[in-house]
Amino acid sequence: MFESAELGHKIDKKRYKLEVPELREALLNAQLELSSANFPVIIVIAGVDGAGKGETVNLLNEWMDARFIQTNAQDSPSDEELERPYMWRYWRKLPPKGKIGIFFGSWYTSPIVDHALGQTKNAELDQSMERITRFEKMLADEGALILKFWFHLSKEQQHKRLKSLSKDPETSWRVSDLEWENFKLYDKFARISEHAIRQTSTNEAPWTIVEGADAHYRSLTVGKTILQAIRQRLDTPKDTKTAVVIPPILPAIDDVLLIHTLDMTQQLSKKNYEAELEKWQRQLALLTRHKNFGKISVVAVFEGNDAAGKGGSIRRITSALDARQYRVVPIAAPTEDERAQPYLWRFWRHLPRKGRLAIFDRSWYGRVLVERIEGFCPREDWMRAYGEINDFEEQLVRNRSVIVKYWLATTKDEQLRRFEEREKTGFKRFKITEEDWRNREKWEEYEIAVCDMIDRTSSEIAPWTLVEANDKYFARIKVLKSLCKAIEKAL
Amino acid sequence: MFESAELGHKIDKKRYKLEVPELREALLNAQLELSSANFPVIIVIAGVDGAGKGETVNLLNEWMDARFIQTNAQDSPSDEELERPYMWRYWRKLPPKGKIGIFFGSWYTSPIVDHALGQTKNAELDQSMERITRFEKMLADEGALILKFWFHLSKEQQHKRLKSLSKDPETSWRVSDLEWENFKLYDKFARISEHAIRQTSTNEAPWTIVEGADAHYRSLTVGKTILQAIRQRLDTPKDTKTAVVIPPILPAIDDVLLIHTLDMTQQLSKKNYEAELEKWQRQLALLTRHKNFGKISVVAVFEGNDAAGKGGSIRRITSALDARQYRVVPIAAPTEDERAQPYLWRFWRHLPRKGRLAIFDRSWYGRVLVERIEGFCPREDWMRAYGEINDFEEQLVRNRSVIVKYWLATTKDEQLRRFEEREKTGFKRFKITEEDWRNREKWEEYEIAVCDMIDRTSSEIAPWTLVEANDKYFARIKVLKSLCKAIEKAL
Repeated sequence: MFESAELGHKIDKKRYKLEVPELREALLNAQLELSSANFPVIIVIAGVDGAGKGETVNLLNEWMDARFIQTNAQDSPSDEELERPYMWRYWRKLPPKGKIGIFFGSWYTSPIVDHALGQTKNAELDQSMERITRFEKMLADEGALILKFWFHLSKEQQHKRLKSLSKDPETSWRVSDLEWENFKLYDKFARISEHAIRQTSTNEAPWTIVEGADAHYRSLTVGKTILQAIRQRLDTPKDTKTAVVIPPILPAIDDVLLIHTLDMTQQLSKKNYEAELEKWQRQLALLTRHKNFGKISVVAVFEGNDAAGKGGSIRRITSALDARQYRVVPIAAPTEDERAQPYLWRFWRHLPRKGRLAIFDRSWYGRVLVERIEGFCPREDWMRAYGEINDFEEQLVRNRSVIVKYWLATTKDEQLRRFEEREKTGFKRFKITEEDWRNREKWEEYEIAVCDMIDRTSSEIAPWTLVEANDKYFARIKVLKSLCKAIEKAL
Repeated sequence: MFESAELGHKIDKKRYKLEVPELREALLNAQLELSSANFPVIIVIAGVDGAGKGETVNLLNEWMDARFIQTNAQDSPSDEELERPYMWRYWRKLPPKGKIGIFFGSWYTSPIVDHALGQTKNAELDQSMERITRFEKMLADEGALILKFWFHLSKEQQHKRLKSLSKDPETSWRVSDLEWENFKLYDKFARISEHAIRQTSTNEAPWTIVEGADAHYRSLTVGKTILQAIRQRLDTPKDTKTAVVIPPILPAIDDVLLIHTLDMTQQLSKKNYEAELEKWQRQLALLTRHKNFGKISVVAVFEGNDAAGKGGSIRRITSALDARQYRVVPIAAPTEDERAQPYLWRFWRHLPRKGRLAIFDRSWYGRVLVERIEGFCPREDWMRAYGEINDFEEQLVRNRSVIVKYWLATTKDEQLRRFEEREKTGFKRFKITEEDWRNREKWEEYEIAVCDMIDRTSSEIAPWTLVEANDKYFARIKVLKSLCKAIEKAL
């Protein structure tokens, strides 16, 4: 795979000087058009030390308009980053639509380095690469243009380069013991990198291998590749649709739906409710003050029919908690900053630190519920959301987040009763809107969407809890109890 | 000051039960109206341990709609926070317009605790309080409704309370050694707090002292105070203007302006330029790789006439830097998230960590330049910006940021020449817009605004560097050289 990058590509100074002005002008023009386009450009810079990665990043910033480039260097993760899933630090740095984000050091760095240093097994590396592939596919599906450059040097070339860098007093700071240590592992790194590159070279996010020895050659190669890719995307007519294969969704052959199997008559007397409430709130209070609670975090998702009692259930949870520990995150229409990012971005930004709870009142599942029903996004977008959501939740679980997901179900009659009651009661009036009535008209469509959602996203690590919510007392206790069980299990 | 909060206020259960539903309904209604109003509510909760602060925060979240409340607990600052000015961690948690932000533990905590523990002198406490007053005034001027509650207990009451909390196995976790240590310092804390409260009780952000012993009393007091304040603001007709005292601005009596005194004929030959460029870029490269550079950060501000060469000067800086170290921040129109926050918020969010440079291409000075000239904000808003900006920059400097501010000045004739040249040159064409031509018509107004800006914001700690930019070579070297000098001084 690296053979073509050891051929000794070379561009002489004259040709370079001749070609650069034109390339630069074309890049600037492309960047200008990009600024009002509906997609971001994500550039990953990876490869061998001394192969010109840093120089190229600097050059790109020089050639193009640095104001619309976000260069993200790979630092040691901050403590805020360490307390969240691995990818959080990259999510927070994704460029918005219209901008270029350069990742100099990226999601590839840790998996490859950890493996080269013998800290992970082959299977783990493969898993990481598989996750990365899915992540990049999601970015591409969300519209991002992804370009990945691997800067290569042959072993001899790298040795020569490191030596010349360390000799020059002006560049010697760039070659530390670490670089020499890594050089000793050249063959191992090459083998692992090749494997990783092969596994993650996809149509959506291809790798470009760049021979790094000659500065003129590598600069023109990277510059022209970027130009070509951006131009191509800009010049593609907007209505061109690539053929999307949409997997079929289970057709509703009969009327037997999962949520119809719930026993909606279940209830709890007021007296029993009060006793149970006290019991489980006390239990929750103790669990969230447990010494090990600081090692986990809790992500609770509330979905349900309108007026099913999400707010009331959430309040029964929060009143057992210390307000310092939790945040209730209401999901409304995305803001401008959020619309400029992939769909899941606005949920990533609210992920809790360790020892905290984030309670989502409506959630990422909006994609496969309201957005599906109302046609806010095309079928292929909500169809792929199931997989993306599973990936997302898997990352949370791997980071020791407890995920609980509640679907609060009422019957259609009970909903009507509550709507009417709310319209009568003063301080509940604000809870009922035109939209609620409109949603109600689509009750049956929602039922199907809910069942599809549960079928496709109720996993062992992040199962849905279906809550029979015709009786509020019964529902609240079921929620509290299952939350306690889930936290208990994690501790 | 605390006398009225030691009177033994008490509300019996019956009255409490009677009043709460009505209060709650009114609070929910106010919150609903608030959600579409043009201001945020900032609630500070402070006071004595055991006086019901936590309970009250929980109760507010229970009474109101927790989805539109952001409760911010005081944690130990994260490393990302430690590397920035003290107030950064509060700025990033400010509630947007339409929401309520509760600060449980706030900007008051450290100054008061540090002083009680003998780590700071009286004068330092006073300075902190003075800075807080200015901060809160700024928030109020930006529209925020600020409510501050101080929960008080007499010494006997606190002792009793701590004892009863530690006896109950369910609450004993709340009383650690720290609480008892603090109790020993009761008198000292009381004295310091009283002083701090007196110093920071302003019309814009008054303190409410709440007797904390009786839960019913304190809950109703806080709830009603919040309700009253929000209602009052909501019910104030929008066109009601409080009388604003606007300080006079130096009138232009004659034509002698500071920027007219610049020697615009200064220039550098190409040969000298190239030698100097190499020299200062090398110097900059060394300085930013200096071992102590990791202890400081650099904030560079570029302002200047259109086409004065800001971009070119910035590029001469960045090409000496490692792309991992810097970010160029172009300032354009604020986004939706940014418009929901105080003016300076969108600059705070881009402040660099230690060892980094943030280069602002246009900046917070837009307020007193384009916004002043174009009338984007009323006179009282840009007039107060001078002071707010000085406060902002002072905080940066105290956090060991090096601030360099450049005004790149050209003559009107030279600008015309460049505009025309740009319109001819391909890859510079995108740089010239209708707006540039419009701005040019207001050249003289801008000159006055620029001189006012320099007069009012060129401080010893953050001076303006006026750059004669008719000759690009001369300008770039002056910028580079002064940047090196500033960093050198800080190291």
